[in-house]
Amino acid sequence: MIVTLLTDFGTADYFVGAMKGAVLAANPRAQVVDITHDIPAHDVEAGAFTLAAAYETFPAGTVHVAVVDPGVGSPRRALAVEASGHFFVGPDNGLFGHVYERARGLRVFHLTNESYFRAAPSATFHGRDVFAPAAGALSRGVAPSELGREVEDFDRLPLARPRRLPDGSLEAAVIHVDRFGNLVTNLTPQDIPEAEAAAGRLRLLVGAREVRRFRRFYAEGGGDPAEPFAIWGSAGFLELSVNRGSAAHTLDARRGQKITVTVKT
Amino acid sequence: MIVTLLTDFGTADYFVGAMKGAVLAANPRAQVVDITHDIPAHDVEAGAFTLAAAYETFPAGTVHVAVVDPGVGSPRRALAVEASGHFFVGPDNGLFGHVYERARGLRVFHLTNESYFRAAPSATFHGRDVFAPAAGALSRGVAPSELGREVEDFDRLPLARPRRLPDGSLEAAVIHVDRFGNLVTNLTPQDIPEAEAAAGRLRLLVGAREVRRFRRFYAEGGGDPAEPFAIWGSAGFLELSVNRGSAAHTLDARRGQKITVTVKT
Amino acid sequence: MIVTLLTDFGTADYFVGAMKGAVLAANPRAQVVDITHDIPAHDVEAGAFTLAAAYETFPAGTVHVAVVDPGVGSPRRALAVEASGHFFVGPDNGLFGHVYERARGLRVFHLTNESYFRAAPSATFHGRDVFAPAAGALSRGVAPSELGREVEDFDRLPLARPRRLPDGSLEAAVIHVDRFGNLVTNLTPQDIPEAEAAAGRLRLLVGAREVRRFRRFYAEGGGDPAEPFAIWGSAGFLELSVNRGSAAHTLDARRGQKITVTVKT
Repeated sequence: MIVTLLTDFGTADYFVGAMKGAVLAANPRAQVVDITHDIPAHDVEAGAFTLAAAYETFPAGTVHVAVVDPGVGSPRRALAVEASGHFFVGPDNGLFGHVYERARGLRVFHLTNESYFRAAPSATFHGRDVFAPAAGALSRGVAPSELGREVEDFDRLPLARPRRLPDGSLEAAVIHVDRFGNLVTNLTPQDIPEAEAAAGRLRLLVGAREVRRFRRFYAEGGGDPAEPFAIWGSAGFLELSVNRGSAAHTLDARRGQKITVTVKT
Repeated sequence: MIVTLLTDFGTADYFVGAMKGAVLAANPRAQVVDITHDIPAHDVEAGAFTLAAAYETFPAGTVHVAVVDPGVGSPRRALAVEASGHFFVGPDNGLFGHVYERARGLRVFHLTNESYFRAAPSATFHGRDVFAPAAGALSRGVAPSELGREVEDFDRLPLARPRRLPDGSLEAAVIHVDRFGNLVTNLTPQDIPEAEAAAGRLRLLVGAREVRRFRRFYAEGGGDPAEPFAIWGSAGFLELSVNRGSAAHTLDARRGQKITVTVKT
Repeated sequence: MIVTLLTDFGTADYFVGAMKGAVLAANPRAQVVDITHDIPAHDVEAGAFTLAAAYETFPAGTVHVAVVDPGVGSPRRALAVEASGHFFVGPDNGLFGHVYERARGLRVFHLTNESYFRAAPSATFHGRDVFAPAAGALSRGVAPSELGREVEDFDRLPLARPRRLPDGSLEAAVIHVDRFGNLVTNLTPQDIPEAEAAAGRLRLLVGAREVRRFRRFYAEGGGDPAEPFAIWGSAGFLELSVNRGSAAHTLDARRGQKITVTVKT
């Protein structure tokens, strides 16, 4: 009965309000919950990251509507996805790339059953006219297979992965910068040998700056307080941070910044 | 049981939280839903547009609280409105102008029954002390006639309409610029002969720039991708857009911009 | 069953969405309500003010989660607070200073019962892993004493108070600037003799500017419309305002600005 919303619509316009109304018109007993509407306009990759970092905390059966959709009105498909006990509704443009990757029990359906659309859907606002009504229907127990036929050839976002360079170092990247200026990398515990991190032998090269310290929590003491450090972040990736400061500013880095990981011998 | 909120309070202050509390104090079973709190401060016309574009998707019986209220504390009246199966609560300053215009079964009541106000209402925050409690009451089934007496002389916002010029052209205007830079005009299907649009004979003059193309959806192909085009928007008005760009920027236009519509013979 | 959220997380990131999910995972029947997520990053004092000004309108039994937490992951304690019929969950850093001050029936508990935490809590995101699950538990009726042992030595934010100067004048301060540029001072009705305000004998010195007028509501007439005036604000403090303008701009003032209050004899 919970329906979350994630869009790039901003909050100043009527778009989000109209979507909420369309969800509630399809299921007046749904609880509509905002994840965010501040995904940068048309930035599918940022939407995919934020959705992935937020959805798993919700209870099983939650319906997540995600709309970052530069191709609205074009022939790109509208989808309903069942994965890991959650439902997802949105465009077939890679926005669910991380969801697919981690999914247990993945099934993907092409939304074609117009009896679940709003009457006379507009060509420009599928969030309101296609996705929100479908989410409302799922939240009241309609099976996703009712909404359209199952498909296999959906769009998997090519996810940025660290890669091994010929010299044995690892080339990673910043995939997200959060509100506090923390740099979220694409490095997961699989990429970083725990023993080497613990032994203080890892070096992270960010442009001309080297980061050598690992911390367990932001406020951990020791060392220069203005010095950047690496920490396992809450989205499951290694992050670069500065205590009560902005690592993005200190390291002059933004999304896409390359990071080279080496082990000091 | 659904109560929506639309204000110019922004989201950084305590105002919105305090209003939500006041709604829920009057009806703990209400579901409170944000439409937006980012209406430009004191901009009644923008609030009226956004409310009109958002409310109709909600199910019948929804209560919409709208507060853009530069005259708070002055003798301007507080209203409860019943229209088209929805309820509206807010100041009598034109904010419901579009609602009145489209209403089926319009009835307007002057909120005077202080037993439905918060105790000791402040002179400066009617959103919390007058409107929110009234909305909570309506959402639990109190009849609007309980809240005060019916009135007829409420404030209808003078809505900007296209007008016919002596040379036969139509002078329209931009009434809203959305987050993507789309320019929403006051042109409705009644103003634009479908045949002439289809035949490509319509010309829209925006300052020194002429817009000649009509599209059915944003991502429709053909022509210069950077060229602005006209499209029927999801709020029911003609919009000027640029594919994956900002028409406001390309056409150097903002709200109030005049547009001249002519038919090429 | 109502759980409010107040944070400094902003709305662009996954933090708020993940917290909402964690509340709903602990109690799928909770209604999650945003107060604000736009507290300036790490500004505990601003969070304390905004929470105090918003929470009292909510019905008894509401659970308020507040996270402005520069010390996350350090040994600062996590708390559940019962006060005045409401519940509060958040860090022990003074964020509940105003709540303590006004509390009837105050009891404070140290959150140590890990069976109410999310599995494998991260060191950096207690909002999601500690506070949100505790709030969900409280909202479904778990007693706060279940979550940990009662403590007495919690952190009371030192609240800024007006002080009497040797010459008999009062030194007050601006403690908040709202979205409309109104300056909220720390002056309460106890500090300002009603008779002297009514007689027009009070003078408020803000830098080099003197404010002499008191108004009952923003739109009250009389005098120069651009002249700042004092008014009892809706948070219970004296505010300095300009009708349809920004007092912060007119008086060139921001939070922390000193104000000297004298009585003209």
